[in-house]
Amino acid sequence: MKHLKVDPIKEGTVIDHIPANRGLQVLSIIKPDNKAVVTMGINFSSKKYGRKDILKIEDRELTASEVNSIALVAPNANVIIIRNFEVVSKTAVQIPDIIKNSARCGNPKCVTNAEESSTRFTTVSRSPVRLRCDYCERTFHIDELKVR
Amino acid sequence: MKHLKVDPIKEGTVIDHIPANRGLQVLSIIKPDNKAVVTMGINFSSKKYGRKDILKIEDRELTASEVNSIALVAPNANVIIIRNFEVVSKTAVQIPDIIKNSARCGNPKCVTNAEESSTRFTTVSRSPVRLRCDYCERTFHIDELKVR
Repeated sequence: MKHLKVDPIKEGTVIDHIPANRGLQVLSIIKPDNKAVVTMGINFSSKKYGRKDILKIEDRELTASEVNSIALVAPNANVIIIRNFEVVSKTAVQIPDIIKNSARCGNPKCVTNAEESSTRFTTVSRSPVRLRCDYCERTFHIDELKVR
Repeated sequence: MKHLKVDPIKEGTVIDHIPANRGLQVLSIIKPDNKAVVTMGINFSSKKYGRKDILKIEDRELTASEVNSIALVAPNANVIIIRNFEVVSKTAVQIPDIIKNSARCGNPKCVTNAEESSTRFTTVSRSPVRLRCDYCERTFHIDELKVR
């Protein structure tokens, strides 16, 4: 690609290197309000990964909890914060050892589903992403969990 | 805006002037396959409408049935076909008088829902979009119908 497919933004957040076709899932984690200016690219060229998705949200920075949820579905993503057209930080997301409330347990009989209560997982592996529910002790591939 | 937020594409379709926050709904009508290169803008500036969504799908032209479904959720949209970076056609979508199979009836007791059969609506008004089911004869605002 000779040039970027999506123009720079003045203020906001860019989430780059989302795995191809995971952009919509990341968008649903961020839940932009209905005034938010968002640009999403799906299946864009990536030197590093072949294909990638990318998301830009103007005038918005993410919470730590949102970044943790994004890490689960896009473990190689970078979160880039832009102020006045300048990159002020670029951080690789990281799956923490303990994940609180970012995902629902995939076991319908787990107590955390019965009570719609808080959840807690321990990271078993990061590539592929596999998490163990601290309540029912079952281990799941990330695609078996609903990330929120 | 001094320049476009999203770059031109070589071959494909641009759907412009989608009402703000309806882009995801249009995307779900088009159902791009998982190799499709898609760019979506949400809440972009529009001289005509204040805010708009925009969708670009590379290497894809739409079927008449897809265009009819898009018209229901984005009645002022333009469908622009691009070949070799040139606009070869620009068409305002239009809600036809009779709409076949683009939407499910909003009446759970309608025979078309019981049998998952084909559907048929008559356009009652275009602004706002209101359609009458030819089977159960109930009239619905477009937001009460599931467009597919």
